[in-house]
Amino acid sequence: MTAPIPHLVDHASLIVHGPDQAGIVNEIASLVARRGGNIIALDQHSTGPSGGDFFQRIVFHRPDLVAALPDIRADLDETVKPMGLEWRLRDLSLPLRMAVLASKSDHCLLDLLWRHRRGELPVTIPMTISNHTDVADDVRTFGVPFFHVPSQSGSDKSQSEAEILGLLKGNVDFVVLARYMQVISNDFLEKIGVPVINIHHSFLPAFIGAGPYRKAKERGVKLIGATAHYVTEELDEGPIIEQDVVRVTHAETAADLQARGADVERAVLSRAVLWHAQDRIIRHGNHTIVFNT
Amino acid sequence: MTAPIPHLVDHASLIVHGPDQAGIVNEIASLVARRGGNIIALDQHSTGPSGGDFFQRIVFHRPDLVAALPDIRADLDETVKPMGLEWRLRDLSLPLRMAVLASKSDHCLLDLLWRHRRGELPVTIPMTISNHTDVADDVRTFGVPFFHVPSQSGSDKSQSEAEILGLLKGNVDFVVLARYMQVISNDFLEKIGVPVINIHHSFLPAFIGAGPYRKAKERGVKLIGATAHYVTEELDEGPIIEQDVVRVTHAETAADLQARGADVERAVLSRAVLWHAQDRIIRHGNHTIVFNT
Amino acid sequence: MTAPIPHLVDHASLIVHGPDQAGIVNEIASLVARRGGNIIALDQHSTGPSGGDFFQRIVFHRPDLVAALPDIRADLDETVKPMGLEWRLRDLSLPLRMAVLASKSDHCLLDLLWRHRRGELPVTIPMTISNHTDVADDVRTFGVPFFHVPSQSGSDKSQSEAEILGLLKGNVDFVVLARYMQVISNDFLEKIGVPVINIHHSFLPAFIGAGPYRKAKERGVKLIGATAHYVTEELDEGPIIEQDVVRVTHAETAADLQARGADVERAVLSRAVLWHAQDRIIRHGNHTIVFNT
Amino acid sequence: MTAPIPHLVDHASLIVHGPDQAGIVNEIASLVARRGGNIIALDQHSTGPSGGDFFQRIVFHRPDLVAALPDIRADLDETVKPMGLEWRLRDLSLPLRMAVLASKSDHCLLDLLWRHRRGELPVTIPMTISNHTDVADDVRTFGVPFFHVPSQSGSDKSQSEAEILGLLKGNVDFVVLARYMQVISNDFLEKIGVPVINIHHSFLPAFIGAGPYRKAKERGVKLIGATAHYVTEELDEGPIIEQDVVRVTHAETAADLQARGADVERAVLSRAVLWHAQDRIIRHGNHTIVFNT
Repeated sequence: MTAPIPHLVDHASLIVHGPDQAGIVNEIASLVARRGGNIIALDQHSTGPSGGDFFQRIVFHRPDLVAALPDIRADLDETVKPMGLEWRLRDLSLPLRMAVLASKSDHCLLDLLWRHRRGELPVTIPMTISNHTDVADDVRTFGVPFFHVPSQSGSDKSQSEAEILGLLKGNVDFVVLARYMQVISNDFLEKIGVPVINIHHSFLPAFIGAGPYRKAKERGVKLIGATAHYVTEELDEGPIIEQDVVRVTHAETAADLQARGADVERAVLSRAVLWHAQDRIIRHGNHTIVFNT
Repeated sequence: MTAPIPHLVDHASLIVHGPDQAGIVNEIASLVARRGGNIIALDQHSTGPSGGDFFQRIVFHRPDLVAALPDIRADLDETVKPMGLEWRLRDLSLPLRMAVLASKSDHCLLDLLWRHRRGELPVTIPMTISNHTDVADDVRTFGVPFFHVPSQSGSDKSQSEAEILGLLKGNVDFVVLARYMQVISNDFLEKIGVPVINIHHSFLPAFIGAGPYRKAKERGVKLIGATAHYVTEELDEGPIIEQDVVRVTHAETAADLQARGADVERAVLSRAVLWHAQDRIIRHGNHTIVFNT
Repeated sequence: MTAPIPHLVDHASLIVHGPDQAGIVNEIASLVARRGGNIIALDQHSTGPSGGDFFQRIVFHRPDLVAALPDIRADLDETVKPMGLEWRLRDLSLPLRMAVLASKSDHCLLDLLWRHRRGELPVTIPMTISNHTDVADDVRTFGVPFFHVPSQSGSDKSQSEAEILGLLKGNVDFVVLARYMQVISNDFLEKIGVPVINIHHSFLPAFIGAGPYRKAKERGVKLIGATAHYVTEELDEGPIIEQDVVRVTHAETAADLQARGADVERAVLSRAVLWHAQDRIIRHGNHTIVFNT
Repeated sequence: MTAPIPHLVDHASLIVHGPDQAGIVNEIASLVARRGGNIIALDQHSTGPSGGDFFQRIVFHRPDLVAALPDIRADLDETVKPMGLEWRLRDLSLPLRMAVLASKSDHCLLDLLWRHRRGELPVTIPMTISNHTDVADDVRTFGVPFFHVPSQSGSDKSQSEAEILGLLKGNVDFVVLARYMQVISNDFLEKIGVPVINIHHSFLPAFIGAGPYRKAKERGVKLIGATAHYVTEELDEGPIIEQDVVRVTHAETAADLQARGADVERAVLSRAVLWHAQDRIIRHGNHTIVFNT
């Protein structure tokens, strides 16, 4: 079993969301206080005073948290569930297990591995999987296992996806596509059963199809962006977690734009992964509530 | 009496801060619920799980708020004060009264007047005061009274400050120095008794004394910034509310830098004023907690 | 006749572009030197060492410039034209005449008028035209004529466009659409015969059709942008001049996004107008070369 | 001898600067054309039409460049020097030799090594030197030699500086201090005789002395910045090459600010190194002209 993160021992995050109604904050604060917890961070968002949606994230400290968790969970089922609200509770000292899928590009992958080694990402990384072997040595330098699962030729990816599923299933809490250049099937998404985070380039306006940097260059865009989002059935259309841009000029070639794009991609992805690992994100419809301040 | 802001009728903000202790959130949430309020926004910040400081801003909706305010205030004195916490409660439908002091530059002043007319700033503007008359016509075009109080020559400003105090006293809830190029005395600050917000240019590194844009040009800075802060006894050293920068190049003259600086000054000041008017800021020691998301 | 801009008297800008070939810079520099000009700014961009495109902007100072212009123009026709290159030469002390078309929104319009009064935009503004009367008083406060040309109902806009053309024709050097909410016909574009600059909101990804801010809110975008571009036959698809973004959060409503969008729109449009007025932009294919440093 | 960079073979950069005078651009363009060169990029900056300073960077392509360099150099001495101008000419296909000095922090160092491996930095890295051994393994993973030169205790650093000088002297064209936490003596600067680039954190306002992140936290700054500059005798006061900032909030601890600072430090330093390696920077007085578009 993974060692707990020392400074987060006895710290829990509690997410509650659902239809807004009078007294929710009070109900939850009472419950936490009754069970000996001290709230040290609270973010709350409502979409309107009546008939709106309610979203809340609490971080509380409770000495001997592990012993108290079953009672707190029972309380939540008893009081919060009947109000039509969903909840999730996490012991923040237990790092999430994150798998990284990559192809040939190393910029997003290495940034995640380096931030993890540096102690910036509260996760463990049980494995990295790639359809190429280019990044194998780098990954292993960081002490992370590397598995090579070559892509199948043709449109049927079921065999390679099955192999990846066999490696991931039960071993990870979320998956990061760090410039993984293979389409993920809906079947895979259903079977994996954990959140999948993707990063892709973004432009204003958007350029559809192949060669986006060439098209962006032809249109003379002045900004290059990146978007990190949860993967859903509709390719690149899932809830946005984070976005950013960098400024470019006419003097930069399509290759330059791509290099600048890589910089913003790794920055955006690392923030999205951090916030997911800290349980700061609530998915709702096709967007996210990110409690990151 | 000023007309209440329609969409904020029956909305109150409650700020509580002081030494952190178990159960504060619960205590306040109970109090609000007991008095018929429904919390629709809550931001909370603690500096540490034990021995730290606690800061909280709640916005709640309560039908017939005005009638309930005395009881809520009594409750707060009874329960929150004994815990060593400070509180303040505001009916958000009643706009704060803001005075603007300016000199010759119009960029910050006009942006505030325009945003107010546009409905972006929940304030009334009973007056603008200047030590020059350059901006008089513009101010009056916006339907705002303009008063001219010439600066005294010499270092003794007591007479002109007394005249300004006479105009402001009792008529305003806060004062904005929108590029007001006169030093404010400590005596004035004490007597005025309401918060004063100032804007000034900022550089990395800082350039002390006269001609900062010329010095910044000589050092070849690549960023020009602005800082909005509360005015305290130590000039330009009060708690920072907001900051921002714009990028500049070697091709820009000191005059260009000043024009770019004006753009970032008006943007930063208007955000600081908005957050103050919405009661989103808690001053603590020499810094601020700004609940702006 | 308009008074020349004092500090730009005897300053000219010369734009040359076309197929790259050895010796162009030399040829042009010789020509300018021969005619008594001193180059004080030069920007040059080539898309490749062979078979590429060449773009150059020179600013030169020449005592008694006006007297020398005919000879310089003759020289350019003689030496530069035979190389297959296009050129344009402007006396920078003569401000371009800019018309602004607006509808009900005032944020872009007022920012242009204010920057003009402040001396930041080297243009004259002979008129503002709107299909509404909301902004009439504000425009006239700045001493700028205002004309009201109501929109025609139905899809045939030929009569109102003819009226606008009648006002503009011969009186202006370029037109700015400052949130002018009417579609411009290709016929109008051909007849007006001067550059038209437009501003519109931009998102990553793009949201097509009505209610873009609502759609952006539903998708949970984290950035709101604006794009200034030259108007071509394809609506909102012309060469991009400038873009920028601001950061937004889940806590902001669609109305908030729109207000933040207005801030970035006015900033982006004012930069695009400035660079056009300073003759810093070369259109090429569907993009621009902007020499702005 | 280092292999030339393939796509830059036969490309040269020529920097000329000094007192402005009529005809310089023409003179230099003629010279390059006469010797068979084709100008493919040209940036020029003058501080004023008369009595100002002139700065120019040309990139030109010349088949069989190496054979022509002696003649071009002789021409420059003959024509440009007598005008009181300084010049420098570089074969851009020959990468500069860069040494990196680091201490325990790896963020700036690794980013440089990674960008170099990726082909983004046109340099060779003959060595990395540190006063600690923490980064040794990482450096060697990138195939770069690592030398450990422990710091001397006490204020006399002459022996360790002599050891570092012995390693660097004759082997490198510039030195990068990538969070090297030792003061460099003026004696060292004089003896090393090549440019030295440093990176340090920057705040608005500046916080002098030890614990800057703690002080920034106490003052509640909203932006954290970094500045890359050339090292001169006055510590941290040399000509600025590049700067940038990131936004922070009250919710972030001093440790968080430091982590965000590390992100902006590595980004700013890598841009400064790139521009230096591409010979885009002219030092003048205490500032820089950076031709980076």
